Amino acid sequence: MTDTILTDLEIGRAAHLLPIEEVAAWAGIAAEHLEPYGRYIAKVSPTAREALADRAPAKYVVITAVTPTPLGEGKTTTAVGLAQGLSLLGQRSMLSLRQPSLGPTFGIKGGAAGAGYSQVVPMEAVNLHLTGDFHAVTSAHNLLTAMVDNHLHHGNELGIDARTIAWRRVLDVNDRALRNIVVGLGERMDGVPRQAGFDITAASEVMVILSLSTSLRDLRERLGRIVVGFTYAGRPVTAEDLKAAGAMAVMLRDAIKPNLLQTLENTPALIHAGPFGNIATGNSSVVADLLGIRTADFLLTEAGFGADMGAERFFNVKCRASGLQPDAAVLVVTVRALKTHSGRYQVVAGRALPPEMLEENPEDVRLGGSNLKRHIEIVRRFGVSPWVPIK
Amino acid sequence: MTDTILTDLEIGRAAHLLPIEEVAAWAGIAAEHLEPYGRYIAKVSPTAREALADRAPAKYVVITAVTPTPLGEGKTTTAVGLAQGLSLLGQRSMLSLRQPSLGPTFGIKGGAAGAGYSQVVPMEAVNLHLTGDFHAVTSAHNLLTAMVDNHLHHGNELGIDARTIAWRRVLDVNDRALRNIVVGLGERMDGVPRQAGFDITAASEVMVILSLSTSLRDLRERLGRIVVGFTYAGRPVTAEDLKAAGAMAVMLRDAIKPNLLQTLENTPALIHAGPFGNIATGNSSVVADLLGIRTADFLLTEAGFGADMGAERFFNVKCRASGLQPDAAVLVVTVRALKTHSGRYQVVAGRALPPEMLEENPEDVRLGGSNLKRHIEIVRRFGVSPWVPIK
Amino acid sequence: MTDTILTDLEIGRAAHLLPIEEVAAWAGIAAEHLEPYGRYIAKVSPTAREALADRAPAKYVVITAVTPTPLGEGKTTTAVGLAQGLSLLGQRSMLSLRQPSLGPTFGIKGGAAGAGYSQVVPMEAVNLHLTGDFHAVTSAHNLLTAMVDNHLHHGNELGIDARTIAWRRVLDVNDRALRNIVVGLGERMDGVPRQAGFDITAASEVMVILSLSTSLRDLRERLGRIVVGFTYAGRPVTAEDLKAAGAMAVMLRDAIKPNLLQTLENTPALIHAGPFGNIATGNSSVVADLLGIRTADFLLTEAGFGADMGAERFFNVKCRASGLQPDAAVLVVTVRALKTHSGRYQVVAGRALPPEMLEENPEDVRLGGSNLKRHIEIVRRFGVSPWVPIK
Amino acid sequence: MTDTILTDLEIGRAAHLLPIEEVAAWAGIAAEHLEPYGRYIAKVSPTAREALADRAPAKYVVITAVTPTPLGEGKTTTAVGLAQGLSLLGQRSMLSLRQPSLGPTFGIKGGAAGAGYSQVVPMEAVNLHLTGDFHAVTSAHNLLTAMVDNHLHHGNELGIDARTIAWRRVLDVNDRALRNIVVGLGERMDGVPRQAGFDITAASEVMVILSLSTSLRDLRERLGRIVVGFTYAGRPVTAEDLKAAGAMAVMLRDAIKPNLLQTLENTPALIHAGPFGNIATGNSSVVADLLGIRTADFLLTEAGFGADMGAERFFNVKCRASGLQPDAAVLVVTVRALKTHSGRYQVVAGRALPPEMLEENPEDVRLGGSNLKRHIEIVRRFGVSPWVPIK
Repeated sequence: MTDTILTDLEIGRAAHLLPIEEVAAWAGIAAEHLEPYGRYIAKVSPTAREALADRAPAKYVVITAVTPTPLGEGKTTTAVGLAQGLSLLGQRSMLSLRQPSLGPTFGIKGGAAGAGYSQVVPMEAVNLHLTGDFHAVTSAHNLLTAMVDNHLHHGNELGIDARTIAWRRVLDVNDRALRNIVVGLGERMDGVPRQAGFDITAASEVMVILSLSTSLRDLRERLGRIVVGFTYAGRPVTAEDLKAAGAMAVMLRDAIKPNLLQTLENTPALIHAGPFGNIATGNSSVVADLLGIRTADFLLTEAGFGADMGAERFFNVKCRASGLQPDAAVLVVTVRALKTHSGRYQVVAGRALPPEMLEENPEDVRLGGSNLKRHIEIVRRFGVSPWVPIK
Repeated sequence: MTDTILTDLEIGRAAHLLPIEEVAAWAGIAAEHLEPYGRYIAKVSPTAREALADRAPAKYVVITAVTPTPLGEGKTTTAVGLAQGLSLLGQRSMLSLRQPSLGPTFGIKGGAAGAGYSQVVPMEAVNLHLTGDFHAVTSAHNLLTAMVDNHLHHGNELGIDARTIAWRRVLDVNDRALRNIVVGLGERMDGVPRQAGFDITAASEVMVILSLSTSLRDLRERLGRIVVGFTYAGRPVTAEDLKAAGAMAVMLRDAIKPNLLQTLENTPALIHAGPFGNIATGNSSVVADLLGIRTADFLLTEAGFGADMGAERFFNVKCRASGLQPDAAVLVVTVRALKTHSGRYQVVAGRALPPEMLEENPEDVRLGGSNLKRHIEIVRRFGVSPWVPIK
Repeated sequence: MTDTILTDLEIGRAAHLLPIEEVAAWAGIAAEHLEPYGRYIAKVSPTAREALADRAPAKYVVITAVTPTPLGEGKTTTAVGLAQGLSLLGQRSMLSLRQPSLGPTFGIKGGAAGAGYSQVVPMEAVNLHLTGDFHAVTSAHNLLTAMVDNHLHHGNELGIDARTIAWRRVLDVNDRALRNIVVGLGERMDGVPRQAGFDITAASEVMVILSLSTSLRDLRERLGRIVVGFTYAGRPVTAEDLKAAGAMAVMLRDAIKPNLLQTLENTPALIHAGPFGNIATGNSSVVADLLGIRTADFLLTEAGFGADMGAERFFNVKCRASGLQPDAAVLVVTVRALKTHSGRYQVVAGRALPPEMLEENPEDVRLGGSNLKRHIEIVRRFGVSPWVPIK
Repeated sequence: MTDTILTDLEIGRAAHLLPIEEVAAWAGIAAEHLEPYGRYIAKVSPTAREALADRAPAKYVVITAVTPTPLGEGKTTTAVGLAQGLSLLGQRSMLSLRQPSLGPTFGIKGGAAGAGYSQVVPMEAVNLHLTGDFHAVTSAHNLLTAMVDNHLHHGNELGIDARTIAWRRVLDVNDRALRNIVVGLGERMDGVPRQAGFDITAASEVMVILSLSTSLRDLRERLGRIVVGFTYAGRPVTAEDLKAAGAMAVMLRDAIKPNLLQTLENTPALIHAGPFGNIATGNSSVVADLLGIRTADFLLTEAGFGADMGAERFFNVKCRASGLQPDAAVLVVTVRALKTHSGRYQVVAGRALPPEMLEENPEDVRLGGSNLKRHIEIVRRFGVSPWVPIK
């Protein structure tokens, strides 16, 4: 290797990957529980959890951060690095991370499977289609919307006031022209006109449900409780009322199984579900954590955005659904983020940093420290005192 | 087995499936060329074709039919049955079939992977997500549309007359309310208003391109030649002009690889691409046939709809793209179809047949025979005299 | 006066107009029945008809034409010229003409109140606002539409299937962007989204009703019978059902009174109602004819478009409503029209005639004569043999 | 007359109206300057102002009010009453009032031409079509919009960013479904799709321009300066740029002439222009005031809404345009309004007052007095100390 700086993609492609069965075996998951997708990716059957039920649970560690800047502070990279470091120290570790959204992949932000020598691989698979979970969420979500519009078309027996329908459509593409649309135009057979719109799949309530369900049965019941809108009489209308939840669950039959991959150093990583951090729950799946907790000495999971968003939802929502309690927390912070939070600079993704930010300036760091302090307090409120690595 | 009549699904689930590596081996495809998706499905790498390049080609058989009735005449079932029968006779056979559309699956028509004891399995996988090819086509198609709308939003440098844009969006759900829509509403940042609409994924030109391409490179070039609309000056605007074709090809990187499955009797079957028979080319992929032709004594492929549609496109379009020439043709016909084509009855899918159709009536059959005669002539025009099994 | 060719507008402005009371007196209409709109225009009260009931009826003459060319054949100009000529011969004549549409006024066709020395004046008033009848029709028409949309908004008690609503909106401006629109967007209080559109006021059914009604009471009843769409159960929904007809009639209270003007030579002219000739009834009002028939020796009225449209509707629709029977018909034709109807030339409004059309060519005229022959037959079928002036 | 309480309509119909020429003569306006619209309404030609230019100006009195309640405080009624009272005292008075909007006429508010024995008549004419000014404003306004859309349709030579177009359409009907619409749908010839909408005619900027112009020439120039939107380069696009202002002015040729009517006691009243009080300028026309100031001892005009809206715009906008300075102001207030402004009651138009409001309660009046005090201060700031009649 020369001293050229390699891109993430080059590093990822140069990695020596192990067959996914070997990675699984290291985590105690027998090959019979795997459903391979190519050589280096496998879905893990629900049977694995039963088989491992008697094993001692791992230490449960959540990685969060200060308020994120447009550049990202490196939560995923820290989580992957920690997992690889623990392995080097002889501790078995398991990662549990969100699947990144395809939508922003073709934008300026790049992928979200770590960076540099702390990546989950194969990186292209993580960033693109992986095992089709996002597509399944997209299909299940849109099936419900189609059934809502069909219900309106066929006489609207439930008496839904179409103007109250809050259930939109989703696509895993960032398509601005679909945000606000009018559907149902054309001939009589082409449905009932109404205002509608598309969100990105990572913002789907189905994605949140996938991430919070403890089993396929739980998923099925949660899907049935989705409220799509209200009748003229003000009564909520659910996916169950529309007889859509069963078919939606069938479409998510495989998506509910966590995906097993590995890091550049062959540490196992479960990549499963990807609800957005800003507008949804921002945490990977309960199902993956319930599996992962029986597969290692340490289970490391990441909570999206800052501690005031992802971590609060981790404690308040995800842990209540899973029943798991974290043993430790990591609060990622960079000097660059602290300087940014001084409020003195404008940082824009894709542009060079302001030159003054590159000079030593302890006062900036001190000012931005109030942001760090507040995030530490938030995590402490949940009974865990975070470890704060400063980069 | 009792004398209860089993449903297709029950028969399919009761089958004794072989690991996909064994099925592949029987066809001469080494395990190193497989990318397994679960235990019974694998994508076949392009390397397989190179490895088998020296093998003698199979006899190439196309299965077509008279004008289809609402009930279907059984082309796929005939093809699967033929393949299984040839195997019993000691002849190695390979099937090459289209992947059915998810859209109609939740409707009344049911799946399209054969029926009864002549099915490709696992049936649910074939009918649902399989290996994600349809989702990849959906994503690639819609990425181009999003780039068109983004181009309009960012000042329309190419001078596209938005009213000439013929490139719509697709979804693999039959959603009537999306057929005719207005997009780009809302604030200024939400794009440029224009009339638009969604088709089903099986109707996507990307699906046709996937089915006709001979390689990833050929796919990439064909994608670039897609015309999305016209400038005010009347010049066509292509996906290449919009710099979209490269990203689209990346999204189809895995979709271009054929999917290997098996029949109920463990005969290998390539299921790949699914362009609609009525409005698109209606034939499975060229890539699958170029692989399959080196893997057996007989390669059996189906051309959608009647001989006047799928078979004409098979000869005129698909064979020109692949360079293959069929050795034989099968023209499926049923007595029920001939009676229907007498023009004396109205047959509706999902309803009982008119009782008179169930009585013996040679005159009906004779009248409907003119339809059969015409289809035989069509196939003969291409230099192949069809074998006509009457059921 | 020099030998400069004057424009229609210049001729019109140079005319010596009489006070409208004098024009009315010449026709036997006393000043007490007039409602003046400026010095040269008056609406005539319904009381005038009662006062004149005992007078002998005029000869009733309808002016029609061969199939019109893009240049117009001069029906109105012929009618005005005839009326003026009869006056010079000592015969009292009265004109009954349609009010032209404001919509096309700002386009290439120009006004429709005659031309040259055969105009109704003041020309600008005729072509613009006159006495507000078109605006009243517009308001009444759109009031009904607003009440339909309000009905949908307030819970749709009648159960109207919004997709069956055939009652659009109208404006007296030719505004292409309003032909096909979606209304009811925005917040919940902004109505129910649906496809809609605007027509030109001359195409309004209210305009047809205004032209066919024999009195305000008859108008009120006809308005109530307007069908706006259908319920989900297939029952027609009328303006009466929506309680809109009364308010509509109030808005048309003045519009139902005919407008009295004069020609350049001070011959009286009733200008009233303006239904389009191509898609509506194309004839001036019944009310004007019922008044005019008691005011002169000859009442001349024009039927829009060719005899196959305006004249057929004159006989079949207007005369049935009024009870009047024509005594004579005039079928206007020009050599230019006959040449055009030979099918050998393409004539476009606003462009110079093809030069060959300006040369003598009896064969062209003979060929085009078949059109004239057919129109003569049409008029004869109604029992009147037309006089055919060839210009 | 019995002691039955008569409705406004009954009182208005029972009035003894004088021919409009007599009313005009009383104001010194010769018949040659009148353009009669029926017997009791006339437009006044611009020549009248020239003929009266040497007469001494009237005292100029503006009538305003405290913050209006849903019931109205009676500004118009006070103005009409004052004018009639001054006449009884031997002082010649002239009223200058806005024309009410047709839109709300069919709603619950009723007309706006005064009430009881202080009305301008004929009341139905005032509330309905009058002399067509509102329709002319509607037509002129929408002509501009049609030309904007036509410009987009014909290649958009000026480079207008359609999303910046702030020039909507207007109709004199309160039609909620037209507030937010999408136009330009259908075929290519049906224009360019964009978001649009309709306002009520009284909210049109053309109405404001009509009310502020001092002459037809001034109107023409003001129309030309209307900004309809912006180019992609950020340059404003005017009606002049679109060559629309000339045609708009032609359409307003008659609308610019004030309408002369009378009160129940035959006092002359100019009713001209009707910009909304809440969102537009809320004052009658400059042209009417410039005429009226030469016709009487007292010219009384009303400023819409409270002194913080209509009166401020009267002083800041209308008086600057006309060059006139008020000699006195009247600030109308009712005990009911003061009680309402105590903030203790909820008053809704069309419902009975809260019973407690009908009891004597000086504390309520004192509390609401702060509103009155503030309005007095506003008027004083403009150099006029208002007279405050409390009803």
